[in-house]
Amino acid sequence: MTTTDARPADAPTGAERPAAPDPVTAASPVATVRPTGAGHARDRAADEPRVAVPALTDVLLGRYADLRRGARGVVADPRFQRVEGLPVSEHRARVLDQLRTLAAEGDVLRAFPTRLGGADDHGGSLARFEELVAADPSLQIKAGVQWGLFASAILHLGTERHHDAYLPDAMSVAVPGAFAMTETGHGSDVASIATTATYDAASGEFVVHTPYRAAWKDYLGNAGQHGTAAVVFAQLVAQGPDDPRPVNHGVHAFYVPIRDAATGEFLPGVGGEDDGLKGGLNGIDNGRLWFDHVRVPRTDLLDRYGAVAEDGTYSSPIASPGRRFFTMLGTLVQGRVSLDGAAVNAAKLGLVIAVTYGNQRRQFAGSSPTDEVVLLDYGEHRRRLLPLLAETYAATFAHEHLLAAFDDVFSGRDDTPDSREELETLAAALKPTSTWHALRTLQTCREACGGAGFLTANRLTSLRADLDVYVTFEGDNTVLYQLVGKRLLTRYAQQVGGDPADIARLVAGQVADAALHRMPLARAVQTLVDAGDARRSAGQLRDPETQRDLLADRVSTMVAELAQALRPARKASPEVAASLFDAHQHELVQAARAHAELLQWEAFTRALDTVPDAGTKQVLTWLRDLFGLTLIERDLAWFLVNGRLSAGRARTVTSYIERLLLRLRPHAQDLVDAFGYGPEHVRAEIASGAEAGRQAEAREAQRAARASGTEPVPEPKPRR
Amino acid sequence: MTTTDARPADAPTGAERPAAPDPVTAASPVATVRPTGAGHARDRAADEPRVAVPALTDVLLGRYADLRRGARGVVADPRFQRVEGLPVSEHRARVLDQLRTLAAEGDVLRAFPTRLGGADDHGGSLARFEELVAADPSLQIKAGVQWGLFASAILHLGTERHHDAYLPDAMSVAVPGAFAMTETGHGSDVASIATTATYDAASGEFVVHTPYRAAWKDYLGNAGQHGTAAVVFAQLVAQGPDDPRPVNHGVHAFYVPIRDAATGEFLPGVGGEDDGLKGGLNGIDNGRLWFDHVRVPRTDLLDRYGAVAEDGTYSSPIASPGRRFFTMLGTLVQGRVSLDGAAVNAAKLGLVIAVTYGNQRRQFAGSSPTDEVVLLDYGEHRRRLLPLLAETYAATFAHEHLLAAFDDVFSGRDDTPDSREELETLAAALKPTSTWHALRTLQTCREACGGAGFLTANRLTSLRADLDVYVTFEGDNTVLYQLVGKRLLTRYAQQVGGDPADIARLVAGQVADAALHRMPLARAVQTLVDAGDARRSAGQLRDPETQRDLLADRVSTMVAELAQALRPARKASPEVAASLFDAHQHELVQAARAHAELLQWEAFTRALDTVPDAGTKQVLTWLRDLFGLTLIERDLAWFLVNGRLSAGRARTVTSYIERLLLRLRPHAQDLVDAFGYGPEHVRAEIASGAEAGRQAEAREAQRAARASGTEPVPEPKPRR
Repeated sequence: MTTTDARPADAPTGAERPAAPDPVTAASPVATVRPTGAGHARDRAADEPRVAVPALTDVLLGRYADLRRGARGVVADPRFQRVEGLPVSEHRARVLDQLRTLAAEGDVLRAFPTRLGGADDHGGSLARFEELVAADPSLQIKAGVQWGLFASAILHLGTERHHDAYLPDAMSVAVPGAFAMTETGHGSDVASIATTATYDAASGEFVVHTPYRAAWKDYLGNAGQHGTAAVVFAQLVAQGPDDPRPVNHGVHAFYVPIRDAATGEFLPGVGGEDDGLKGGLNGIDNGRLWFDHVRVPRTDLLDRYGAVAEDGTYSSPIASPGRRFFTMLGTLVQGRVSLDGAAVNAAKLGLVIAVTYGNQRRQFAGSSPTDEVVLLDYGEHRRRLLPLLAETYAATFAHEHLLAAFDDVFSGRDDTPDSREELETLAAALKPTSTWHALRTLQTCREACGGAGFLTANRLTSLRADLDVYVTFEGDNTVLYQLVGKRLLTRYAQQVGGDPADIARLVAGQVADAALHRMPLARAVQTLVDAGDARRSAGQLRDPETQRDLLADRVSTMVAELAQALRPARKASPEVAASLFDAHQHELVQAARAHAELLQWEAFTRALDTVPDAGTKQVLTWLRDLFGLTLIERDLAWFLVNGRLSAGRARTVTSYIERLLLRLRPHAQDLVDAFGYGPEHVRAEIASGAEAGRQAEAREAQRAARASGTEPVPEPKPRR
Repeated sequence: MTTTDARPADAPTGAERPAAPDPVTAASPVATVRPTGAGHARDRAADEPRVAVPALTDVLLGRYADLRRGARGVVADPRFQRVEGLPVSEHRARVLDQLRTLAAEGDVLRAFPTRLGGADDHGGSLARFEELVAADPSLQIKAGVQWGLFASAILHLGTERHHDAYLPDAMSVAVPGAFAMTETGHGSDVASIATTATYDAASGEFVVHTPYRAAWKDYLGNAGQHGTAAVVFAQLVAQGPDDPRPVNHGVHAFYVPIRDAATGEFLPGVGGEDDGLKGGLNGIDNGRLWFDHVRVPRTDLLDRYGAVAEDGTYSSPIASPGRRFFTMLGTLVQGRVSLDGAAVNAAKLGLVIAVTYGNQRRQFAGSSPTDEVVLLDYGEHRRRLLPLLAETYAATFAHEHLLAAFDDVFSGRDDTPDSREELETLAAALKPTSTWHALRTLQTCREACGGAGFLTANRLTSLRADLDVYVTFEGDNTVLYQLVGKRLLTRYAQQVGGDPADIARLVAGQVADAALHRMPLARAVQTLVDAGDARRSAGQLRDPETQRDLLADRVSTMVAELAQALRPARKASPEVAASLFDAHQHELVQAARAHAELLQWEAFTRALDTVPDAGTKQVLTWLRDLFGLTLIERDLAWFLVNGRLSAGRARTVTSYIERLLLRLRPHAQDLVDAFGYGPEHVRAEIASGAEAGRQAEAREAQRAARASGTEPVPEPKPRR
């Protein structure tokens, strides 16, 4: 310990201490990525379960394993990999080139109709895109802009005429396109955008117009530089023969050319500017657009859900303007689904790097006489990394569930209003959870690798910078959690059923129960509280039913309490109701997060049944337990305040976590290896074995010096 | 709410909703940075306290207010400000130029001797440097490398001969210098570095040598490109006439020229490489160095604490090699002190940006019929930002305390072994706390500003990227917390006094007490638990004695429990002892964090007495309460498990926080304005009033459209 008190200001290193000879691993640097087990010999007993890594990789790759492997082949190709340090203009040009090469070679058009060269494979298409984050997040997101938003809007909001006219060039990236929805003044509130498209029956054209600066389209990928067309969202205004005045039919999408492909100049009436440098994703040319009375043919309204006849008569297959609006926007859920998957993949890459390095890098144990312990054999290092590994597994399995739900809806196999709402709620719950998890994981991994983690060559900082905006785009995470919270409240009211007053009474009863700190609901929880022995209760915490009951009870109780707390809003003035809602916004967000975590836990638990190998299943069960217990520990105060856990039981949560960390530690490398990434995907010097190689060289030099007999002797201790 | 469910993938925006007319503020965009008070009218009552902003600025600027104001004048000069998007080579060249201009004009040499043009003002010097972070963190850190490390080592480790020979060029940056301590294989463990400096009595020279790759000096600022000299730390090996063999006298520092100033080429025997791109701070040329039997004159050993005579006889004023080592390294504490201050300043900048924007940016209240609420009037937005504001105030006051302690020691006014150890422990506690706080704050501010926060023009992402490495350099945060934890254990043993067995018994008694969930120690806590009424206990939580008792009790109990848990290590085998220590490493870190937070709380509370204005004092008292309660809420499970708070009282913690947030909300702008930064320091478009201006323009256009009578009408609702 004594020597850790010194670090120069320009030494951005982690908690390192020096290498010293290690007879076990000196001969074989490769072996050092396996734990040496110093101090944890009992974990290496003969009956210790082993992870069957390749089989676990299959489980993790899931339903679309072949497509994912194909996409990783793309990622392994240097043509698609990020080159660090490029000037922005070159990075942008490179990513555009990559996009066109992908279109030609990359099997990235699966979501499009078979007749146009696609495969009508929606889930498989997303699975492939999610893998591209390992090449360069800019490539993943630019692909998302081009195919997931621009072309997808033509596909889902347009009709066959638009598909024939515009999809081929959108698919091939002959026409890079922007998705012009967001305005500087309106982010989440798409319904209130101010751009208008007014039908002029005399000419048979729409006039697209930006009324003021706040209505400029903003943050649009492909708008800053490359886009030659855009799908522009605008308030559709038309006046049919029977309309006494022009009518605003709400937000619709229009296909609008914006730049001359040959010169790159804006077309007449179109203007804009580059959003400039960003905190990440600088391979994408985000920008702003405005329109000054730009005329487009009537037929360039993407008219699947709303059409205007030559005489200005509006018609739609969906009579309700509100439902029409949400139907149109509902086609965009795929963005959230793919961000969820990409974020989990980024977290995996971070953990591969940090765990591999943590298994090589050695430092003295300050207070320990046994020297040169690898980082992962330090308690705090395990504490920082392994729960993130457990959460990454949970997020992987939860994403697989989300992707299946997405494919069920978009393939038409299960496309009902209910299943669409379920899909949207699921995506709104998981996307915030996984994107925040990715940032936390990448940052913790960066710190766990010390100064080496700060070097761009080791990838962690760039991945983190690129992933940063994932938490606020495609639906700001906090806004999405509120959406989930409100759906939970609605669902609660539906389940309770009957008269609203009855609901309120029922909720009131439950809350009173909780306030008295009695046990509600769950049998296992009851048992847990009654049990007196700490060891026994740790055993109970290992029981999946106990974990589920605790986590599920938390969600249902929070929702019931919220419903009760918000009840007076129904009869209050608008101001008071708003105040009341505002006062509980934080709890609403918390309830949504708890719901998302329960979804992850359930997905992890279901996945255990798909693991054929007994040893692997045992290790994954510990990992699931670590995930469940980590969730419970994180919200321990809630369980205590609400009487779900006694103080004595609460103490066992933490001690059981410590035991699980020790159990899992020998398997950490297997668990990250099972993600299935090779060096061509990881591309980080510190995860390459170089550290172990340097240690071996140092050991050999020290050995030779000792053998030479000329080594200096230490300064004698002064006489007292 | 209904419309928040739609967000395009390339729309990295926050939780925004559209602007709509606001008669109160439309006429005056500037006024919109003040809260409108919608829904919070009671907070704007006539007897509402007001913050006297300029007077509060004086309090915050503290002892070195004039020097800080001077440094902010430097920051306001565009020559010193960061230019975003520069290629690395240009950024590096610009920062080197800035450094030289600072030396000539910037009053940055205050720490150096008066006779050489300095002012012998150690605290004031650091205060100025901390402010430079607002110009460009690269400038702050490169200045730290040049003057705080390289020149400072010459000053503190050298003698007058070295001062005369080397300080003038180091001070003027005629010689940019590296501080070559860290090696690739050794970060924290400076004592084990492998570079050697072997005295050759025949030639009267030291031979500096790097034995293998792991011993390369690494991560050194100025080493990648600009440095022409370095202070190199190496194991000093010498053989005096009486020594039978060469003796290793431990780590010493040597002045070593490394590059030809004219050509920029390495001198013979010196080599190295550039560390390349980093996750931030790319205005600094970090790099690696190696030495192949490089000879330097005997007199270039910086010999204040250890000298070698011509014949190889070693002598030192400090007999103990260990104490000598720590004395040498103790001079480096200023790096941690200044990082603490700079990190707090970076958090301030982030909060100025996010709070100002949050006071302008409007969005619909989804569930509210009262429209266009500014972001800060949303409960969750307050919850995310205001506790960070409270913590930033606490960190500011704690830093002022640290800086005073630093100046007391370095000025010689109070330079004793005890005061040095106290200073080192204080720095080791506060630096991790404030640097992690800065990262959390900058990230939360970025997210609170949505997509706008992701644009480089709005500064948040760059500040965060640059500050990232602050958490692992100058002592890895986790390692520093362990150091603090161990000092707490030592101090505990000293306080308890007497025989170790007695200590153990005493600790055991305390722990048993806690395990029984009885109240220990504190009168106020006892009262709290006994009180039955929630309102009354909220009042008690407002009592500073209650807050102090809870926070102090937590630290002392954790330390006592740790001492007890580690007790068996004294009689155990080394392996068992290491295992035991490892098993409690996480708690050690937690105890250190709790200690640091208590220090911050104490500093905040003491600072309240220095506020002359009653209104300001009231608001700051609420802010201090918010800080204290936030700390208690964050560790609520601990207080519950250990019986310090009942479940009922624990509930009042959160509800009291919500009340404090509402109370503080009208003062949020004043509280960030009081940091005293002008637009020339903030330099973020979203904090400029542009948002409010766009809203005013949109309102006027909407008003005109309504007045024209030609506005389209909404689509009629369909008949059921």
